[in-house]
Amino acid sequence: MEKINSLQNAHVKAWKKLQTKKGRRQQGLYLLDGWHLVNEALKAKQPIKALLITAKQLATKPDLTVFPTVIEISEEVAAHISATVTPQGVFALVPLATSQADPLTDLDLTRPWLLLDNVQDPGNIGTMVRTADAAGFAGVAFGRGTVDLHQPKVERSMQGSQFHLKLISTDLESLVERLHTADVPVYGSELNPQAAQYLDVRAPACFGLIMGNEGNGMRRELLALTDKNLYIPIKGQAESLNVAVAAGILMFGLYR
Amino acid sequence: MEKINSLQNAHVKAWKKLQTKKGRRQQGLYLLDGWHLVNEALKAKQPIKALLITAKQLATKPDLTVFPTVIEISEEVAAHISATVTPQGVFALVPLATSQADPLTDLDLTRPWLLLDNVQDPGNIGTMVRTADAAGFAGVAFGRGTVDLHQPKVERSMQGSQFHLKLISTDLESLVERLHTADVPVYGSELNPQAAQYLDVRAPACFGLIMGNEGNGMRRELLALTDKNLYIPIKGQAESLNVAVAAGILMFGLYR
Repeated sequence: MEKINSLQNAHVKAWKKLQTKKGRRQQGLYLLDGWHLVNEALKAKQPIKALLITAKQLATKPDLTVFPTVIEISEEVAAHISATVTPQGVFALVPLATSQADPLTDLDLTRPWLLLDNVQDPGNIGTMVRTADAAGFAGVAFGRGTVDLHQPKVERSMQGSQFHLKLISTDLESLVERLHTADVPVYGSELNPQAAQYLDVRAPACFGLIMGNEGNGMRRELLALTDKNLYIPIKGQAESLNVAVAAGILMFGLYR
Repeated sequence: MEKINSLQNAHVKAWKKLQTKKGRRQQGLYLLDGWHLVNEALKAKQPIKALLITAKQLATKPDLTVFPTVIEISEEVAAHISATVTPQGVFALVPLATSQADPLTDLDLTRPWLLLDNVQDPGNIGTMVRTADAAGFAGVAFGRGTVDLHQPKVERSMQGSQFHLKLISTDLESLVERLHTADVPVYGSELNPQAAQYLDVRAPACFGLIMGNEGNGMRRELLALTDKNLYIPIKGQAESLNVAVAAGILMFGLYR
């Protein structure tokens, strides 16, 4: 088994760069951090290129026959390439899906889609993907301006749900157009006087639901393309709901 | 105006200790960090003891006549006493509510209560308080084992909702007993075979809803005292929902 201990090693330098979108695109790879995500990727039959593992984790005698390549790394290397403060000491290198094919062809239109417009907080994004998974959605679309789906904190907070439903990065205007072509309604979630109370809406089996930026909500241009805007009635004095909580209420409220 | 620049100052040492529960109890005070919380406290007519403010914030010429005492502090002192990485430079010292009175007498029983059992993450707690505010709940009870309600991160993530509804720290078993005495039903949120689908429950105007620990759920002893346990049907492959998202779905689902 190859062993890599030095932060000066060229591989280590390359792995560190996978924390950035540019690094991931240039290498065509992303990194999964920790056994939970690695095991979820295995369960979902993701094509793992290599496993990076510390001596301490090797001592737990995991089954490594499933990995084409296993490289032992030092604790120092693990700490360097991880985006967490206390990494577990196990990582998988996974090829990015080849984005040759247009993600908008071949969409599952039997179930709903969640569309993220300029959402910024990795924790919120991960929680929404996990909730969409739990609610039985077909997938989540990451619009331009939304944090990249392979950003380490986003990967971690999705907790494996990234392998349970379809995640696509796309221009949301094009996706809305595609949904409209198939007579699928798209709902916005901007508080405005024309908004409909979400419980009054009878959503079909497939619809699109757009959640916007934490501070500014949805972009006007996108809002203009929606069929209906939904609001959650606020009874108390809170100015707003956390975006992930609002998404949960709407997803479970609309799709029962 | 008094000016304090040194980290060696006895006041500064005392303020720093307000980050801990022991320090808050010993001094009978807690700290609000940032204009948003300070302004929410003013709006709610909280008895602010003193305002601590940097020269930079003073230069914005805020109206300080409402504060009995104003102390100018250096940026270094601000950074030292704040629990945030980039403090705004304004803090209010607020007396803790005198806990002589039993929080369980004089409960508002016209609207629902959220009960937090061993919830650990300050962000989750703050989000749940904010959601309970938005859902029109009467208050939130912090059970033993749940992070203290005046913990700086909890204060911050409540975003002002702490002044919009009643927050009490109490033994949850006693609170459930008190609610039962008034014929108020208490719902648990533990996934179990006897659980009822939350949408099938017709909740009265006042009820108690218990949310448990992020990893382990509710304590068994408390679960045994509930009238019904509710579950949110999971359609996908996610193992669970984030506790704050689940709380939002249940609060808005039960109390319309």
